[in-house]
Amino acid sequence: MYKDTNKRSVLKGLSWRVFATTTTVIIVYIFFGRLDLAIAAGIMETFSKVALYWAHERIWMKIKWGRKKIEPFNLWFTGLPLSGKSTIADAVFEELAKLDIPLERLDSKDIRDVIPDVGFSREDRNRHMHRIGHLIKTLQNNSVSTVASFVSPYKESRKAIREMVKNNIVVYVKADIETCKARDYKGVYEKALKGEIKNFSGINDIYEEPKQAEIVIDTDKTSVEEAVAIIIKYIKKNYVK
Amino acid sequence: MYKDTNKRSVLKGLSWRVFATTTTVIIVYIFFGRLDLAIAAGIMETFSKVALYWAHERIWMKIKWGRKKIEPFNLWFTGLPLSGKSTIADAVFEELAKLDIPLERLDSKDIRDVIPDVGFSREDRNRHMHRIGHLIKTLQNNSVSTVASFVSPYKESRKAIREMVKNNIVVYVKADIETCKARDYKGVYEKALKGEIKNFSGINDIYEEPKQAEIVIDTDKTSVEEAVAIIIKYIKKNYVK
Repeated sequence: MYKDTNKRSVLKGLSWRVFATTTTVIIVYIFFGRLDLAIAAGIMETFSKVALYWAHERIWMKIKWGRKKIEPFNLWFTGLPLSGKSTIADAVFEELAKLDIPLERLDSKDIRDVIPDVGFSREDRNRHMHRIGHLIKTLQNNSVSTVASFVSPYKESRKAIREMVKNNIVVYVKADIETCKARDYKGVYEKALKGEIKNFSGINDIYEEPKQAEIVIDTDKTSVEEAVAIIIKYIKKNYVK
Repeated sequence: MYKDTNKRSVLKGLSWRVFATTTTVIIVYIFFGRLDLAIAAGIMETFSKVALYWAHERIWMKIKWGRKKIEPFNLWFTGLPLSGKSTIADAVFEELAKLDIPLERLDSKDIRDVIPDVGFSREDRNRHMHRIGHLIKTLQNNSVSTVASFVSPYKESRKAIREMVKNNIVVYVKADIETCKARDYKGVYEKALKGEIKNFSGINDIYEEPKQAEIVIDTDKTSVEEAVAIIIKYIKKNYVK
């Protein structure tokens, strides 16, 4: 959140003066037909009004009327591990940052660093989602929109998020399990297949496909750039006017 | 966070016009000595400039220059259980809300509802404090100030908070252990004395007094109202100008 500096109010006063005094000089010239006096009146006006404009700005800064609270949204990326959620979410975050709205990026990995010892059982995951929901809600209370990417394999936890937050937009990053396995640069699928990782969504734990996602990205057919374009278009149409 | 509505820009244009046209009429009258023409010029100016002012406002809304990011602070209340931390913090929060700054209240109890199963051992508490620190940091990134009340009995976790967040103000709510016991409306001191609650700060676990608190409130000598006044004065002096 920002507030106007004194300098900004002065510069606004000066830029306004360029428009306003030009108009005054033209009006006075039309009425009296004397350009010399019109210009003299313009000069006198300039000096008196820059100060007046500054004072007017500072007074309005104290007035709350006519200020609309910015409506935050939550982009919730769900999908199998290595489906491409984080990559698309990162790119979307970068684009949204250009719109100059208050924005936070929440990613599964970073959050698990902050809140350690969270298990991967159904109950653990659901409890973890509840915490994330609380964090998003707290940020939304302060007009901050969020770009969140979590595997979030269970429908009840995605439902809990939807109930906790405002303007929830589920983006289902759909990828074939074989595609994800082929992308296995972290070696996590291999470990899961060997049984070294338990409760791994898509291998030895269920991933329940979202049925009511606002946006579905089929990564087998859609490039990252195309996905970003689709999501940004959706946000601009519905939330950032 | 807020943004100006169209209506606000129009009303600003009208209120400005009252000041500005009055000045113009006076100036024109001084130069030409004819009040009738001065008023006619003023009327013509009014119509042309309200629209011009509105456009000028909307253009400036797109310009970022001269907007200063609001600097957030963290009021961190520490003290024995039932020392009066939450009561004072609640009252301070209410007062600060009047200053129209982005603000969140974080209380030990509410957070433990959201992040359950957090133990009370030294290690558990320190890890818990690290999470709270992360939450405050995320809020501060978005210009949100915080009023936090946690027993936070160990110096290392208070130090960790100080290192993680900006503009940290420790308020040590000092109360004699006997006073806290006498206030034991929750019956927690009794349970701790009987050994039914383990790791209870002040009874069967240490409370390490903060040595570098920015503000110390001695609840045996200071009323809640006086405490609030001291803290608000400190905030106004140092953070909200």
